[in-house]
Amino acid sequence: MAKGITKRSEDYSKWYLDIIFAAKLADYAPVKGCMVIRPNGYAIWENIQAALDKMFKESGHVNAYFPLFIPESFLKKEAEHVKGFAPQCAVVTHGGGKKLEEPLIVRPTSETIIWAMYKKWIQSYRDLPILINQWANVVRWEMRTRLFLRTMEFLWQEGHTAHATFDEAEEETLRILEIYRTFAEEYMALPVITGLKSEKEKFAGADRTYCIEAMMQDRKALQGGTSHNLGQNFAKAFDVQYQDENGKLQYVWATSWGVSTRLVGALIMAHSDDRGLVLPPKLAPIQVVIIPIWKGDDEKKAILTKIDSVTKDWSTHFRFKVDDRENYRPGWKFNEWEQQGVPIRIELGPKDLEKEQAILVRRDTGDKDPVGLDRLKNQITELLPKIQEDLFNKAFEFRKQYTFDCDDYTQFKKEIEDTGGFYNVHWCGSRKCEDRLQNETKATIRCIPMEKKAEKGKCLLCGSDSEERVVIAKAY
Amino acid sequence: MAKGITKRSEDYSKWYLDIIFAAKLADYAPVKGCMVIRPNGYAIWENIQAALDKMFKESGHVNAYFPLFIPESFLKKEAEHVKGFAPQCAVVTHGGGKKLEEPLIVRPTSETIIWAMYKKWIQSYRDLPILINQWANVVRWEMRTRLFLRTMEFLWQEGHTAHATFDEAEEETLRILEIYRTFAEEYMALPVITGLKSEKEKFAGADRTYCIEAMMQDRKALQGGTSHNLGQNFAKAFDVQYQDENGKLQYVWATSWGVSTRLVGALIMAHSDDRGLVLPPKLAPIQVVIIPIWKGDDEKKAILTKIDSVTKDWSTHFRFKVDDRENYRPGWKFNEWEQQGVPIRIELGPKDLEKEQAILVRRDTGDKDPVGLDRLKNQITELLPKIQEDLFNKAFEFRKQYTFDCDDYTQFKKEIEDTGGFYNVHWCGSRKCEDRLQNETKATIRCIPMEKKAEKGKCLLCGSDSEERVVIAKAY
Repeated sequence: MAKGITKRSEDYSKWYLDIIFAAKLADYAPVKGCMVIRPNGYAIWENIQAALDKMFKESGHVNAYFPLFIPESFLKKEAEHVKGFAPQCAVVTHGGGKKLEEPLIVRPTSETIIWAMYKKWIQSYRDLPILINQWANVVRWEMRTRLFLRTMEFLWQEGHTAHATFDEAEEETLRILEIYRTFAEEYMALPVITGLKSEKEKFAGADRTYCIEAMMQDRKALQGGTSHNLGQNFAKAFDVQYQDENGKLQYVWATSWGVSTRLVGALIMAHSDDRGLVLPPKLAPIQVVIIPIWKGDDEKKAILTKIDSVTKDWSTHFRFKVDDRENYRPGWKFNEWEQQGVPIRIELGPKDLEKEQAILVRRDTGDKDPVGLDRLKNQITELLPKIQEDLFNKAFEFRKQYTFDCDDYTQFKKEIEDTGGFYNVHWCGSRKCEDRLQNETKATIRCIPMEKKAEKGKCLLCGSDSEERVVIAKAY
Repeated sequence: MAKGITKRSEDYSKWYLDIIFAAKLADYAPVKGCMVIRPNGYAIWENIQAALDKMFKESGHVNAYFPLFIPESFLKKEAEHVKGFAPQCAVVTHGGGKKLEEPLIVRPTSETIIWAMYKKWIQSYRDLPILINQWANVVRWEMRTRLFLRTMEFLWQEGHTAHATFDEAEEETLRILEIYRTFAEEYMALPVITGLKSEKEKFAGADRTYCIEAMMQDRKALQGGTSHNLGQNFAKAFDVQYQDENGKLQYVWATSWGVSTRLVGALIMAHSDDRGLVLPPKLAPIQVVIIPIWKGDDEKKAILTKIDSVTKDWSTHFRFKVDDRENYRPGWKFNEWEQQGVPIRIELGPKDLEKEQAILVRRDTGDKDPVGLDRLKNQITELLPKIQEDLFNKAFEFRKQYTFDCDDYTQFKKEIEDTGGFYNVHWCGSRKCEDRLQNETKATIRCIPMEKKAEKGKCLLCGSDSEERVVIAKAY
């Protein structure tokens, strides 16, 4: 057990923060609710960005940048939207030493400013579709914040697309949902459930909100990303019409979608253990750390020379680092890199040198094996995807173990308290039962899952007829 | 001459805006002084980011992210700093529906928030150096804005480093200056003068500000980037001390440095002509555009099949696009891609197909030559760096042509009005002469250049002794 990291079993929330501080991922900022993303945390975010950005571009999207400030009047143009976001806004009232005529909102999300621009850019069907994404910071005034998971300012990407038809918009919404699922499962090694949000939980201004939901190690749900079909709501609010091929004016159809630095929080909670951070190789800023062990200058020289020759072509294969710092002992270094979640550690001392071998240690399992130096590169190249896969499978098995079908409300209330987890339950579809569920159990409907079997049943709460099961859980 | 683009000789400012709108690089935002960076403009910025980010990382820097909001009291801790930035601040006074106890400043630059964090992170010499950069948006309230060159909100990178000694900080300041010079000359194809700012022109809070200065086509100067040696000013303001190897407490030494989306403006103005944007190949989002020419479906099929086979391995060599849109004529496409600054255009019609050739057109010179299809890839691969070099040389020659030594104030006043350009003049070093110069001629001291010959002379304004020439010009 690493010094300074609380056990998960003792205090899960404290464990989460201890991991962050031990790995130097983030820190509290002077302004309440804001965070500083430190270099170790930001490097993870950069890898997340690179992978997602590539997927967006390969599916025809381009990046742009829209302003931080939104005139207050814009936010009010879409009725549901302003109702959802107004209570969370940060407001600029003064600029350049003067009081502003109209206050400016620091963007909580950019639909309104973007649709004001789309009005200028869209006249004809030839101008469609527009497939724009932006990487940006947004601000939502939050009272109860937690590093990465919920902060007043956060970094995200927000896609905003414009289409000629409902079908195209729906197709785009689902295309992005699939990108999010693929990214979560293949890069974050995090199995997710894809599904539709209930009317209550959908985005303020959307017709439909789809989401990915993942189970954390405390068996709570975390919403990892959302993809919204906005219908014609924003086109109508900002009067954006296009002339179709027959010369007829039509309102434009819209989508928006986003994931944020919250994903870093999900990544931390999904795989880490009581010794510190555990990162999936695809997103780990450093995949392999080599720790030379020596006494005296001669040994040092021999070992470092050997490492130089062994690693000379590694940089085209994986991201590695040699930790040859003088003023720290090997044991201290082992612990530091373990806390930082580096997937593979290589130890190389004088005795290993004699045997032409190194010791390879897996961060996720702790397995420790000698490997011949001539086989080291290949071994690592094979092991990295194996670790990635093992982490996914472990998380998948964990979720399976804590996912239950449940048809008895009394039993459910006991189990969600004792065990937590995901519950597939029948729900009649009413807001009344949804509210009652949340008030009585703090659990919420996470989503109406995309993958489901047709199965008639009775609502867990009111006993009315139901056509399908939904996923409920306590959530972040 | 392209429709809709004013000639440089008629109205340079209008020409600049016409280029931007014709190439769809940016647009005005609803909030006065703010801009929207459209996909074509943002793609250039992404290429700038990628090249610089690589150079920063190769020189040991890491990225991080600090909050957008700075408590008002922080800005006031460094006396010169607040004097410089307070008049330009946007102020958040309300959040979450309530008036804030302390107003928050939307960062105009991040020294204060970062040094508040460095106080937490730096205790010992072992914690130094810290070499952090961040890519972020900043806000400075501006009355007279111009797309890319001066906007209320802009995107930039800001490096903030902490060192144990003055010498290390000065070395870092100059290392970054050299990165900026290399980037401007090798990627932007823009020759720059490196130099030191006068006391009057230096950054608010710096001991020394170094800069790169480039000449635009209207012969005005544009400051492209600055690198500041901040001395111990911020360490003292935020009480950041470290214990040195002898156990003694010392104040930390600091640097900061930045370039912004202003560079996109510089790029536009440096190379473009009366037909539209001209981009250097290294930063062009699309380096080669292929325009098939056909009549009827059979021709179309034959041409596109040929293009497919000719270009099949191109994507690993350069960034290209085939414009096979149906509803636009070839001539319209030529014009559009010319306006967007694509360095090389390839035309391929039925007659070319017969001769197994294509027509290759250079955007910068307009040169138009047939090239055998079997030689096309090699020809392009050789031509792209040649275009890059030619653009640099052209800009270099232009600057040379309009750079003058001048020792007569009356003559200078006439020439700066008639011809513009850069003037190497003697200056006594006094603020009085510097102010007078600006008041009487609108020219400013751009920098005390790094490359100079020792040469005694008399101040252009007061006639006092001077040891070296400085560069003066009208500037953006």
